Amino acid sequence: MMRKTLVAASRERLRRLQRCLRRKRLAAYLATAQAEVTYLSNFRGEDSYLVVPARGRATLVTDFRYAQDAAAECPHLRRVLRRDSLVAEAVRSLRRRRRPLGFNPAVLPVSVRRQLSRLLGAGGLRQLPEVVSRMRAVKDAAEVAAIERALRIAERAYADFLKRLRPGMTESRLVAELEYALRCHGSEGSAFATICAVGPSAARPHARPGARRLTAAAPLLVDFGAVADGYRCDLTRMIFLARIRPEVERAYRAVLEAQAAAIAAAGPGARAVDVDAAARSVLERCGYGKAFGHGTGHGLGLETHEAPSVSPKAGALALRPGMIITIEPGIYLPGKFGIRIEDDVLITGKGRRVLSRLRKQVDEVRLPARR
Amino acid sequence: MMRKTLVAASRERLRRLQRCLRRKRLAAYLATAQAEVTYLSNFRGEDSYLVVPARGRATLVTDFRYAQDAAAECPHLRRVLRRDSLVAEAVRSLRRRRRPLGFNPAVLPVSVRRQLSRLLGAGGLRQLPEVVSRMRAVKDAAEVAAIERALRIAERAYADFLKRLRPGMTESRLVAELEYALRCHGSEGSAFATICAVGPSAARPHARPGARRLTAAAPLLVDFGAVADGYRCDLTRMIFLARIRPEVERAYRAVLEAQAAAIAAAGPGARAVDVDAAARSVLERCGYGKAFGHGTGHGLGLETHEAPSVSPKAGALALRPGMIITIEPGIYLPGKFGIRIEDDVLITGKGRRVLSRLRKQVDEVRLPARR
Repeated sequence: MMRKTLVAASRERLRRLQRCLRRKRLAAYLATAQAEVTYLSNFRGEDSYLVVPARGRATLVTDFRYAQDAAAECPHLRRVLRRDSLVAEAVRSLRRRRRPLGFNPAVLPVSVRRQLSRLLGAGGLRQLPEVVSRMRAVKDAAEVAAIERALRIAERAYADFLKRLRPGMTESRLVAELEYALRCHGSEGSAFATICAVGPSAARPHARPGARRLTAAAPLLVDFGAVADGYRCDLTRMIFLARIRPEVERAYRAVLEAQAAAIAAAGPGARAVDVDAAARSVLERCGYGKAFGHGTGHGLGLETHEAPSVSPKAGALALRPGMIITIEPGIYLPGKFGIRIEDDVLITGKGRRVLSRLRKQVDEVRLPARR
Repeated sequence: MMRKTLVAASRERLRRLQRCLRRKRLAAYLATAQAEVTYLSNFRGEDSYLVVPARGRATLVTDFRYAQDAAAECPHLRRVLRRDSLVAEAVRSLRRRRRPLGFNPAVLPVSVRRQLSRLLGAGGLRQLPEVVSRMRAVKDAAEVAAIERALRIAERAYADFLKRLRPGMTESRLVAELEYALRCHGSEGSAFATICAVGPSAARPHARPGARRLTAAAPLLVDFGAVADGYRCDLTRMIFLARIRPEVERAYRAVLEAQAAAIAAAGPGARAVDVDAAARSVLERCGYGKAFGHGTGHGLGLETHEAPSVSPKAGALALRPGMIITIEPGIYLPGKFGIRIEDDVLITGKGRRVLSRLRKQVDEVRLPARR
C-alpha cells in the first residue's frame, strides 16, 4: 500500500476516536497494546504508546531504536523518543488537560494502571472498553485491500507449496516449505504459528508440527496465513495424496457442508451465534457434534484473532458490513484424523463475499501422488 | 528434550513457587501470561491459565482445542477443559481455600482483575510482582540446555544461509532464506521478527526487511534466533561481501571492542548497569556515544526479551549464576550504515560463558564475493 493511504487511514481513525472522546468528555485516550497503537497511528514498531488527546495532534511515545521508522510511518504525529518510562512520557506529553484519561481495560496491565493513577490522581482514569476494538472490527477500505493482498500472497505461496511437497517430508519440513513460499511471495512473516498436521496430528486443532512424516495414505491439514502491511489472512485446507478413505471423505463432506451453511448464514444483521449454529447444526445432524469443540470463526486484521468472535458465546453480537471473519468448522477424532476447512469472509451491505479463492471441493483437494 | 525432563522441571518450579506462596501466606497463584503458564506447567498452547495452590496439585485451565496437547505435556497437573470464562473456571478450580490469590500485576489486564475481584470479594487478591519473572531470570539446567540447542540450530542455519546468499537478493528474500534454514535445522519457528538489513537499512536498529537489495558494497546486518522446546536464542552478525570501507571497519572494530568489554564485565555479582557501561564507555571513547542509543542487552528464555535488562536503567540489579543475557552493542549512523554484534552469555559461578560460537573477527566476517 502506498504510505499516503496508510497515513490517511490513520488520520481518519484518529478523528473518529477524538469525536468519541469529546462525546464522552474525556481529555485523551492512551493506547498501549501494539495492535491498537498500529491501528491508530500507522506505526509498526514495538514497545511504544500512543496518546490521543480529544483535540489536536496525537503523540507517539517510542525510543531510539524506532526513531527513523516512526518518522517515516508517522509524519502526521508528534513523536517523542523517551528517556523516562513509557507511562511517565505519555502523561508528560499531555501537558495541560490530562484528565480523565481513557484506557482499554482488556489490555492495560494492573501495574501500568497503578503508575497512571499515581501520576494523574483520583478520578484521573476512565475505562473505555471496546471502543477501539469495535472500530477495528469493521474494516475500512485500506484494511480490506490489505487483507486481500495477504490472501493473494497466501494463495500463490500455497500453489508453490503444493508443487514442493513430497511424501516423507516431516511436518516441520512442510512448515519450512510453506513459510518460505509465503516470504518469497512477499509476506511480512507468518500470520501465526503455521500448522502442517499429518493424519492423527490433525485431530489436535492447534497441532504443533513435529517429526511425523507425510505419507500418501494420511490426510494433511494446512492452516496458515500471510501478512501484508501488518494485516493477516487465515486459511485452512486439507490435502489428500491418495484415494480418500470413505470415513474421511464423509467427514470432509460434512465440514464442507457446515462451512457452506455458515457462509450462507453470514450477512449484515445476522447474529454471530446464528452463523456458528448454522455450521454446528450440520455437524450435529451428521453425527459429529462432539467432534467440533471450538467456535466457527473469528475476526482478523492486525491480529489473527480479534473481534468479532463467531461462537456460541458471542451473545447478541450482530455482523456488520466491513467485518471480516474466518469461517472454519472442523471435525477432530483423536487418534484418527482431523478435518478443517477455513476461508475469510467479508460482510457486505447486501450479504457476504468470500475473499479467499483456494479450491476445496472433494475432487479438487486430491493431489494424485505424482512422485 | 525428553518429555520427562520437561515435566520434572515443571514440578520443581511449582514446588519452589508453592514454598513462596506459603511463606507469603497466599492461598494460590494465578498465572495468565502464556510464558508464565508454559514456564510453570510445561504446557505450550495459548489462551490458558494455570492455578497453583499453596499445597497440592496445580490446575491447567484450557479448552477443547488443546485437550490432547495438555494431556501429553502436563500429565502431572489437573486439567480442566473450560465451558465458562477462563477467570470463572480458574476460581472454581480452587474449591475451598481461594483467598488471597496472588497475581502478576505486570501482565494481568485491569479487566481480568476486576472479574477476579468480583468473584473473590474484597481482600481476595494480592499483587505478587516479579516472583515468577525472577525465577525465570535464573535458568535451570534444562533451560540452559534448551537455549544451547537453539544456538546450535541457529549456527547451522546461518552456515547454510551464508552459502545461499547472493548479491541482488532483497532483504525480504534474505529473511526467507534464513528462516527456511532455521526451520530445516529443527527450529520451532523464528525467535522474533528476523532482521536482514542492507547498508543504510541497518541504521534502524529494528529494521523491517524490505525491497532493498544486497550488493557487494553494502554491509549486511543479520539479527535472528532459533527456538527449541520454546526457548529462544538471539544472535546478530555483520556480513561483508567485499572490501570493508575504512569508516565501516573502524565502527566494526569499536563495536567488537565494546562487546568484549561488556562480556568481560559480566559475571556473578556484577551490576547490569556496569556491564552496560563497559560497552558504552568504549563506544563513547571511540566517538560513537550518540550512535548507540539502546541498552546493551537483555535476558532471554521462553521470551526473547525477559529479565534481566542490561541497560543504564537496570538500577541495582546484580547478575547471578544461571542468568543468560544477550550482549549486543551497536553503532547506528542514519542514512549511512549500522553495525551490531550480538552473542548470548551465561553467567556462571566463576564468571561467564559465551554460549554462541559464530565467528566475528574482522577477517572472519568478510565473505569475498564468490559469484
